[in-house]
Amino acid sequence: MVGVDRQEFLRKLVTSNDTKILLLVMDGIGDVPGKDGKTPLQVARTPNLDRLAAESEQGQTIPVLPGVTPGSGPGHLSLFGYDPVRYQIGRGILEALGLGVEVGEKDLVARANFATIEGDVVKDRRAGRPSTEESAKVVEKLSHAIKEIDGIRITLYPGKEHRFVVRFTGDGLDERITDADPQKNDLPIVWSEPLVEEARRTATVVNEFLKRVKEVLKDEPKMNFALVRGFSKYPDLPNFCEVYGLKAAAIATYPMYRGIAKLVGMEVLDCGPEIEDEVKVLKDRFNDFDFFYFHVKKTDSYGEDGNFDAKVEVIEKVDRILPEILELGFDVVVVTGDHSTPALLKAHSWHPVPFMIKSEFARYSSTNTFDEYSCARGVLGTFYAMDVMGLILAHARRLEKYGA
Amino acid sequence: MVGVDRQEFLRKLVTSNDTKILLLVMDGIGDVPGKDGKTPLQVARTPNLDRLAAESEQGQTIPVLPGVTPGSGPGHLSLFGYDPVRYQIGRGILEALGLGVEVGEKDLVARANFATIEGDVVKDRRAGRPSTEESAKVVEKLSHAIKEIDGIRITLYPGKEHRFVVRFTGDGLDERITDADPQKNDLPIVWSEPLVEEARRTATVVNEFLKRVKEVLKDEPKMNFALVRGFSKYPDLPNFCEVYGLKAAAIATYPMYRGIAKLVGMEVLDCGPEIEDEVKVLKDRFNDFDFFYFHVKKTDSYGEDGNFDAKVEVIEKVDRILPEILELGFDVVVVTGDHSTPALLKAHSWHPVPFMIKSEFARYSSTNTFDEYSCARGVLGTFYAMDVMGLILAHARRLEKYGA
Repeated sequence: MVGVDRQEFLRKLVTSNDTKILLLVMDGIGDVPGKDGKTPLQVARTPNLDRLAAESEQGQTIPVLPGVTPGSGPGHLSLFGYDPVRYQIGRGILEALGLGVEVGEKDLVARANFATIEGDVVKDRRAGRPSTEESAKVVEKLSHAIKEIDGIRITLYPGKEHRFVVRFTGDGLDERITDADPQKNDLPIVWSEPLVEEARRTATVVNEFLKRVKEVLKDEPKMNFALVRGFSKYPDLPNFCEVYGLKAAAIATYPMYRGIAKLVGMEVLDCGPEIEDEVKVLKDRFNDFDFFYFHVKKTDSYGEDGNFDAKVEVIEKVDRILPEILELGFDVVVVTGDHSTPALLKAHSWHPVPFMIKSEFARYSSTNTFDEYSCARGVLGTFYAMDVMGLILAHARRLEKYGA
Repeated sequence: MVGVDRQEFLRKLVTSNDTKILLLVMDGIGDVPGKDGKTPLQVARTPNLDRLAAESEQGQTIPVLPGVTPGSGPGHLSLFGYDPVRYQIGRGILEALGLGVEVGEKDLVARANFATIEGDVVKDRRAGRPSTEESAKVVEKLSHAIKEIDGIRITLYPGKEHRFVVRFTGDGLDERITDADPQKNDLPIVWSEPLVEEARRTATVVNEFLKRVKEVLKDEPKMNFALVRGFSKYPDLPNFCEVYGLKAAAIATYPMYRGIAKLVGMEVLDCGPEIEDEVKVLKDRFNDFDFFYFHVKKTDSYGEDGNFDAKVEVIEKVDRILPEILELGFDVVVVTGDHSTPALLKAHSWHPVPFMIKSEFARYSSTNTFDEYSCARGVLGTFYAMDVMGLILAHARRLEKYGA
């Protein structure tokens, strides 16, 4: 039963009404005790979150499996109700989304590195780590020189340092090809091989692209070749709006999260870079949608920086804007994260994620705080993030009874 | 692992002894805070349940999946250890069981509505919602007129208002046919179609039945046709007594629950309509069985009525009779529900269900209260109702060690 695909199961029970739902995701919100034995959520002064907590059910979610640290892809897919083990978004796609690259059904995308070769041997897989600016110039040079191969359009997007993204566009592209990357220095160049017969032409196009790169860059001192890996087509995900019968909008400032929301079928709203901009969009478009995914990035960014105090400040900022959000009158409000990003670790982690849900039908308790510990003791217990959408739809009265 | 079929796994470990087990199910017991911020279990004065709680392990169960509201069928199947997603009892069967209809292996049952037609168009799918009495008269008229079609015996059972149940009895009936119901008013009559070739004769019999109904009722002002849907054969469920090695009895006053218990293979004991009658039967037959499923209906009924106070009274009544039950000397006592029925919702809900289990081997705590919140914090945590039977058998020392 627990092995059941949630979306297949729920979609048969989904019914419609005019309730409004908010899923507020503070990226990487979960943490572990810092120097003073408290987490950022415990240190932050959050009167509004605390008031919401007193009217909510609390619990903590497991993004993928106990002990498993999710990337942003699986972290968000789970929250949106997709089994993160069954559905995986390719590295190439995520890298592309992170750069704001539009990816469509005829596209094959891949992550690329500049590399230094001598003859046919890869001497440095990162080409001496060029600056982002130096690297962008070489990407531009390549873009001018290589526009198309055998009817397949090539588009290049500069990334950080030695990284960039290649998008191949055309009919019949197939992601089932091997990485063109020896994985270690001082090994010969590796060409892409088809894993299935249908992918032979794609591998040929990729290898032809690499030969052209080698030719175009032959006089560059360091960035004289490229390694390409993580080939991914547009993933075939069930449509969020169809599965749950929701008109869903995404409000997020970073390309990666806007991209994931778009992949699952949400409408991604135009938005400025600050939380205040996000709130403005939410207010402006409140009447147009049933469901809002509202993403706050900087809790995660400061967690990754190891900046405990800045993470506390972001939480307090979210708390200050909360009343303005809540007065819009949502029927269901969820506050949670997609994973934990403890400042101590300076990285995503496997720790369960604080979660609360408020509705008229919440089994609320007298808990008037929202943090890792109150949530771990919450009435919802510990559950899979993949089950969040079921709870949300239930509280919105958007699920029929199962069986008579 | 979590996807493992519990019954297949447990049945290999089952061993026998002379322990006595009570599974006391207060239907729809779980609730949410009412006007004064407390649930019925919190408001009720329950000294005996509280005493039992102090000697028990507590936890809360998820009947099907988080967010999913179960009907009585899935709610009880889970408690009896059946995967409620794998095993589904058809709508027709549940409707029939609810009316106390005997269903056997040669039977095909279906839900039926009286409807009003004009020519071949269904004008009102509920025939103007006749009273139960009016409807019963027309059922009787049909019963006299239609007794058999092509060797298949027809039996009709009146239900509430426009509803009744049709039972087809004979060899070779097949449930894989479509509903004979346009689902909306002002659409033409829909006839049943076979979904597989083997079901062709069944669809023909059903359609012949409907033509006869049309003929017999042609002069009725409103109830001049019938719609039939939810065709179900007797479900093929593993036998409870065989799987768990238990001589099991059901004590329940409502036909639906007696029916479900019979479907899984329990012996259903004759019983009067009140809780006191159920206690009397329990005492009289205590020596004849290992396992008693004891069902209290009215916690659910008052929940569905939105009658918080009456739900409290039923809980207090159960509490008063509890000592009489416990002094019989059970080795394992479970008190729980099949789902929640919050008075605020006036309906079944998805909320987890309070659970406690008492045995000599309970990891009891000092908690001397039994309610949604004490159970949410209980040592058993939150778990699937499907796992209740494993716990029961363990506490009864009826499971061998798994592996050396």
